[in-house]
Amino acid sequence: MDQSDQHFLNRAIVQAIKSAGEGGVPVGAALAWRGTLVSEGHNQRQQKHVVTLHGETDCIMKAGLFGRWHETTLYTTLSPCMMCSGTIIQFGIPRVVIADAVNFGGNEEFLRARGVTVDIVNDATMIAFFKDWQGRNAEIWNGDIGIPS
Amino acid sequence: MDQSDQHFLNRAIVQAIKSAGEGGVPVGAALAWRGTLVSEGHNQRQQKHVVTLHGETDCIMKAGLFGRWHETTLYTTLSPCMMCSGTIIQFGIPRVVIADAVNFGGNEEFLRARGVTVDIVNDATMIAFFKDWQGRNAEIWNGDIGIPS
Repeated sequence: MDQSDQHFLNRAIVQAIKSAGEGGVPVGAALAWRGTLVSEGHNQRQQKHVVTLHGETDCIMKAGLFGRWHETTLYTTLSPCMMCSGTIIQFGIPRVVIADAVNFGGNEEFLRARGVTVDIVNDATMIAFFKDWQGRNAEIWNGDIGIPS
Repeated sequence: MDQSDQHFLNRAIVQAIKSAGEGGVPVGAALAWRGTLVSEGHNQRQQKHVVTLHGETDCIMKAGLFGRWHETTLYTTLSPCMMCSGTIIQFGIPRVVIADAVNFGGNEEFLRARGVTVDIVNDATMIAFFKDWQGRNAEIWNGDIGIPS
């Protein structure tokens, strides 16, 4: 984690907080290439009524046909679910930086086994922020990760 | 594979052929619940200029907040990539029916190891159809599955 990493992780955090302000699931992501922002995004479940737009997939969708995924780093506020981990692997994104692997996780070793560098920051502010939201929004959160209501 | 399965697989096939007609990657999918269509979709890479909308993820996105993923079957014309496989697992879709696991594949055992029933039809018409398209569109196809150009 250098200054550039912190900058892009902060962009992901801003996305998460924006999503919370929209009544959405507060997970954000940013994609960087050679120290430059490619795209950023946040979970859109509540905003667009789809399950496939997590922070990471919304961010990657917004990168359009950028294509040079194998030279990027993906910053995310919450450890990637299986859908997002599969996406990272499929497009060959070589590195993921995670602010919070406490409130959700479990795919870090799967990513590493497929050659992805996984850096876990465990930012105390983001862990407290997400834990608070999760406690007040259990049904939305369960739907977001595929647990039937 | 019963008559109902063939019906929904045919819907996925219609989606793939529609996508081809739009100049897109010809992969389609359909999602069924209790013998009823929930949603259908096709790869949107060329049409919408995003990499995350494969046939399966476009179909699941179009199901909105349906939610009862654990009671559905997903029909797809081409064996799911790692992104789509991760999505199937994350949302607990219990069964996938694949028309063509010859021109692309490799995640079938991964899906099975996570509890997904994977039925491979290997439809000769669809295998020939996709192989022909793939041969004429190598660059688009490589980009679609994350191989850098």
